[in-house]
Amino acid sequence: MEDTTVKLLGNKGSPYSHRAEVALRLKDVKFEFLHEDLAHKSDMLLRHNPIHKKVPVLVHGEKPIAESLIVIEYVDEAFEGYNILPSDPYERAMARFWARFIDDKVIPAFWMSCWTDGEIQKGFIAQSKETLTTLQRQLEGKKFFGGDSIGLVDLAGCMIAFWFAVLQEVAGINLLNEEDYPVLCRWAEDYCSVRAVSESLLDKNILVAFFASKKEKIFATKAPVYD
Amino acid sequence: MEDTTVKLLGNKGSPYSHRAEVALRLKDVKFEFLHEDLAHKSDMLLRHNPIHKKVPVLVHGEKPIAESLIVIEYVDEAFEGYNILPSDPYERAMARFWARFIDDKVIPAFWMSCWTDGEIQKGFIAQSKETLTTLQRQLEGKKFFGGDSIGLVDLAGCMIAFWFAVLQEVAGINLLNEEDYPVLCRWAEDYCSVRAVSESLLDKNILVAFFASKKEKIFATKAPVYD
Repeated sequence: MEDTTVKLLGNKGSPYSHRAEVALRLKDVKFEFLHEDLAHKSDMLLRHNPIHKKVPVLVHGEKPIAESLIVIEYVDEAFEGYNILPSDPYERAMARFWARFIDDKVIPAFWMSCWTDGEIQKGFIAQSKETLTTLQRQLEGKKFFGGDSIGLVDLAGCMIAFWFAVLQEVAGINLLNEEDYPVLCRWAEDYCSVRAVSESLLDKNILVAFFASKKEKIFATKAPVYD
Repeated sequence: MEDTTVKLLGNKGSPYSHRAEVALRLKDVKFEFLHEDLAHKSDMLLRHNPIHKKVPVLVHGEKPIAESLIVIEYVDEAFEGYNILPSDPYERAMARFWARFIDDKVIPAFWMSCWTDGEIQKGFIAQSKETLTTLQRQLEGKKFFGGDSIGLVDLAGCMIAFWFAVLQEVAGINLLNEEDYPVLCRWAEDYCSVRAVSESLLDKNILVAFFASKKEKIFATKAPVYD
């Protein structure tokens, strides 16, 4: 008989792992969450994602799938139920565009704003403000990026919705705030209230402690510590 | 009546533009190719792709779609005919994974190998060899990454198939060659022989002249000049 079990190799502290976990929960897929210690990754993770060696890795039967946005699309296509991507080809293209915009522009600018100083930090903060403003504009007239319910772009944006507050608290900056980004902040709250999301999130204080413990190392290397 | 015309804002010198053009040709979509002078981009391009300001931009009726891999998936979903992505969800995920691997790992390592020197270049050449070896392994037992016919990964790899030879000639390095990568070189030839591809390609000498004229600027900035 074909093995159809679903395992998620992930870490609750990772926004990328979170994306995959929420996708599975939205689809009501039964899965086993296998916690990965990111400082000592398992042989199973390294075997299933030898290229990037990162979480998340979804293992469906014997088949491993890596890279969080690719995992989300796989989950959406392989399982019935909730639609994470829209069905219209143009809306699908737009969802993919904004998901990539978050990964390629919004997250890097914010991350670097947290872990630099002086003139260099000023440059990244300016970039970060610009990308957040552009992104916020996409929410006009909508509850979620996906419309009335969360979709690909909302999942892609989970780091903005939950992790950014943690990061800026640890870094001592105040970039994403109610005054400058009321719509994004309202969205972040709504996103975190969705059951599939809230069930997947760690307590914020645990995340703050985690990033605080890594602060000097991150500042020195700028390298992500959460995948 | 709904406007269903298809326009491609592109430049024949750009591998990203090429991806979109070949996707349209594979699908037998009638389209108008609007040449963009990359040094003086049109108002239409800037209006339709204000975020990245890059080619290609596909305009379907009134709807603009940017980012080459997203354009390919849109073309595959919006038009009947040739299948650029496989229909099986797992195979689709794998195609997306390797297409992103090319964009995130193979192209940057090769590009930097061309436009650096000394110890730094040695590091990029080592990276480039590793990524090319990993990619070549995906071709084992297959004519194309897509199997018997070209698909998403082949289109994503067009820069390797045609542009890499141009770049290494201009840069004076010899990374991708028959001896070290016989399977990739055989694939490159097969790829360029596909009619939808050969109809889209510029003469190699024109590209060599183009990159040669930009050589010093690229060396100084490392910035892409072809999108």
